[in-house]
Amino acid sequence: MKKLFGNAIVGQSGGPTAAINATLSGVIRGALECDAIEKIYGAKNGIEGVLARTIIDLSDMTEEKLSLLETTPAAALGSCRKKLPKNFDGENRKIFEDIIAVFKEYNIRYFFYIGGNDSMDTVAKLSRFTKEIGYEMHVMGVPKTIDNDLAGTDHTPGYGSAAKYIATTMQEIIRDTAVYTVKAVTIVEIMGRDAGWLTAAAALPSLYSDVTPDLVYLPEVAFDYDKFYEDIEKAFEKHPNVVVAVSEGVRTADGIYVGEGTQSGATDAFGHKYLSGTGKALELAVKDKFGCKVRSIELNLPQRCASHLSSKTDLDESVAIGRSAVWYAASGETGKMMIFTRMEGEKYEVGIDSADISGIANAVRSVPRSYINERGNGVTKECLSYIAPLIIGEPTLVYEGGLPKHFVF
Amino acid sequence: MKKLFGNAIVGQSGGPTAAINATLSGVIRGALECDAIEKIYGAKNGIEGVLARTIIDLSDMTEEKLSLLETTPAAALGSCRKKLPKNFDGENRKIFEDIIAVFKEYNIRYFFYIGGNDSMDTVAKLSRFTKEIGYEMHVMGVPKTIDNDLAGTDHTPGYGSAAKYIATTMQEIIRDTAVYTVKAVTIVEIMGRDAGWLTAAAALPSLYSDVTPDLVYLPEVAFDYDKFYEDIEKAFEKHPNVVVAVSEGVRTADGIYVGEGTQSGATDAFGHKYLSGTGKALELAVKDKFGCKVRSIELNLPQRCASHLSSKTDLDESVAIGRSAVWYAASGETGKMMIFTRMEGEKYEVGIDSADISGIANAVRSVPRSYINERGNGVTKECLSYIAPLIIGEPTLVYEGGLPKHFVF
Repeated sequence: MKKLFGNAIVGQSGGPTAAINATLSGVIRGALECDAIEKIYGAKNGIEGVLARTIIDLSDMTEEKLSLLETTPAAALGSCRKKLPKNFDGENRKIFEDIIAVFKEYNIRYFFYIGGNDSMDTVAKLSRFTKEIGYEMHVMGVPKTIDNDLAGTDHTPGYGSAAKYIATTMQEIIRDTAVYTVKAVTIVEIMGRDAGWLTAAAALPSLYSDVTPDLVYLPEVAFDYDKFYEDIEKAFEKHPNVVVAVSEGVRTADGIYVGEGTQSGATDAFGHKYLSGTGKALELAVKDKFGCKVRSIELNLPQRCASHLSSKTDLDESVAIGRSAVWYAASGETGKMMIFTRMEGEKYEVGIDSADISGIANAVRSVPRSYINERGNGVTKECLSYIAPLIIGEPTLVYEGGLPKHFVF
Repeated sequence: MKKLFGNAIVGQSGGPTAAINATLSGVIRGALECDAIEKIYGAKNGIEGVLARTIIDLSDMTEEKLSLLETTPAAALGSCRKKLPKNFDGENRKIFEDIIAVFKEYNIRYFFYIGGNDSMDTVAKLSRFTKEIGYEMHVMGVPKTIDNDLAGTDHTPGYGSAAKYIATTMQEIIRDTAVYTVKAVTIVEIMGRDAGWLTAAAALPSLYSDVTPDLVYLPEVAFDYDKFYEDIEKAFEKHPNVVVAVSEGVRTADGIYVGEGTQSGATDAFGHKYLSGTGKALELAVKDKFGCKVRSIELNLPQRCASHLSSKTDLDESVAIGRSAVWYAASGETGKMMIFTRMEGEKYEVGIDSADISGIANAVRSVPRSYINERGNGVTKECLSYIAPLIIGEPTLVYEGGLPKHFVF
C-alpha cells in the first residue's frame, strides 16, 4: 500500500478527563515515530481551532514534556463542543470546505480527533466529506469519555481514572460519615446522564474493604421513590449511617429525571437536558420522609479531572491507543475509531483495534441489566470484575511545593 | 516530681480529618513508650464511649497497624459532638461523676482528647472537675481541625492535608474550566464557618503555576454583592473562565450569611447555623446578573477526609504532637492543649509545646486582615507563605486493587 506523506493535526474535544492528555501524548509520540508524518500540529479548542487557525507545532515535544503532559488533567490543547452540520448540502457545505482549506494550507493528511460521542460524529462526517471531494486524508477518532458509554469498545480512556477517583472518594466519604452514631443518610451524586458506569464504580470498595455504599442507583433502571424509601429503611437496620450512590441521570418510570424538579429547562449545546439536582432532590425527599440528618454531595467536576488520583492502567492504555491511532492511520485507515478489546481469561489483557465509526457515533453503551441486581439498588460481582482492573496502579506524579505539577503549552 | 502510674484512654471528637488518626497513632505510640502508662485504651465515639463503656484495648497495636492507621481518614475510634454541661452544679454534676466512675473502674490516670474547639472545652471541664474532687489525673487536649481556627497554636493538625486537597483540586478545576472558550463562572464553595484559612489555601497554586482562582472571598471581610459583580466583570477582561473560591461562611455587612437564603433555620448540636448554600446562592446571583454559564461546586466532605492526598508534613506533625501529649502528661501537666510554635527564619521549623486551655476553648483564630488584600477579594503573599510549608510532602500509601487501604479497629 502506498504511504500517504504529509503533516498531521490532533485536536481534543468534549468534556475534560484525567486521561485525554495521555492520549494526546500517545498521538504525538506516534506521529514523531512515523516516517510518513513530517510535522505534528495541535489545533487549539478542537475543530474550532482548525477553523480559527489557532494551530501550534508539537514537533518539539521532548520526553520530559510528554511525560508531564500525561499526568496533566483536562485538555491541554483546549476543547470545544462544536457539532458539524448533518449534511454537506447548501449552506452547510461551507464549514466543511473551510476546514479542508486549512488542511490544504498546512498540508494536513492525518487528522486525529480525541473525544466522545459527539466528537466521533465529527470524525465520521469529515471522513465522508474528504472521500466525497477526493481529498486524500486519514481521519481517525480516538475515544475519550469518563462516562464509558461509547459503543464498540470494551471501555473508554478516561473511565478508569474517574472510576478510581469515585471509588476512593466514596470510601473516604463512608469512613467520614461512619464516625457518628446519629442516624443519617448521605447521598452522593455521580456523573452519568444515560449510563451508570461511573456510579457503578462507587461499589468497588466492597471488593477489598469493609465499606461500600448501601445503595447504588443507575439510570438503566427506572427509579421508584417508594422502593427507595424501603431500601433506606432496610439499610438503617444494618447501621445508622446510610450512604447512597446515585447517578445524576436516574429517571422515574415515566422518564422524568429525578433531578429535573430542582433544575428545569436548561439544555447544553447538543440539546441534552442540563441536570444538577438529583442528589439535592433526593436529599429533600429523604429529609421529608425520615426527618433524619441528610446530606447530599455532588462529586461534580473533580471526578473527571482529578489527575492526582488517576489510574496507571488508564493512562498507559490512553497513551497506547493514541499511538496506535497513528499506526492505523499510517497504514491507510480512515473514518475509524480506535477501540479496546478485552481478551478472554482470568488475567486482564487488552488489545487495540479499529472499528468503523458508523454505528459508534451517537450510540450509547449502557450498563447491561445483568450487571445490576434484581432490585435495581446495587451492582453485581460481574460488574465489579469488569471495572476492577481498570483502576489498578498509580502513576508517578511530579510534585512542586506539595502540588502536582502540570504541563502547559 | 512523682510519676503518676496507671492506665490511659484516648478519644476522638468533632469532625473527621485526614490527620486525626495520625494523632491517635502518636498518642498510642507515646503511651506504649511511656513507663508510667500500663495500658492504653480507646474510647469509641469520644466521651460518649467513656460513658457507654465502649472501650477497647489498644496495647496490641503493632508498627504495621499504626502506620496504616496514620493514612486512614476520618476517626478510626469514631467521634461525637457531645458537649458537657457548663458547670458541676445540681443535675449537671452527675455526668461528670459518671465519667469519673468509669475512669476509676479502668484505673484511668491519663485522658487524651483529640478534637477542635468544642473538644477542648471538654478537656477544660474534665480537668477542672478532677482537680475539684481530688481525683489525680492528667487530662490533655490534642488539637485537630481542618479549619485551622484554634487559638494558641501556629496551626492545627489536619489543616495542612485539607489545604493540600483544596489547592490540588482547585488547580484541577481551573484546568478543567479553562478548556472552553465560552464565558463562564465557576464558584467553588469551601468549608470554614468563621475562619477563611481553608479558602485561602485555594490560592496556593499561584505560587508554583500559571493558574489560580481569580477571586477569593473569606468570612473575615464583609461580602458585598456589588463589589463581587465588579470583580467578576474585571476578571472577564483577563479570560473567559472566571473561577471564584468562596468560604461557606461569608456574610454581608449586616451579618447575614450569603448561603442563608437557600438553607435557612437549621442549626447543629452546638447551635451553629447549618450552612450549605453559599456557592449555590452566588451561582444564582451571577446567572441573574451576567446571564452566562455558571456552575457552583461544593467541595463538601471530601475536603476533610481525603487521606489519599494528605500532606506528609501534616501527618508527621500530627503523630509528633500526639506523642508529645503523652510525654507532657507523664511529666505532670493537665488541663493543657498541645500546640505548634513556628520558629523564626526562612526555613520552616516547628516546635511542640503545651498551653493553658482556658482562653483556647471556644475562641476562634481568624485570618488576620493583613493576610487579605485591600479589596477583600484575594490573599496576600504573606498569607501563602504561612500556608505553603504545611502542604509539603506525600506520604507513602498502601494500595490494594487500586484503592488506598485503610485501618479498621
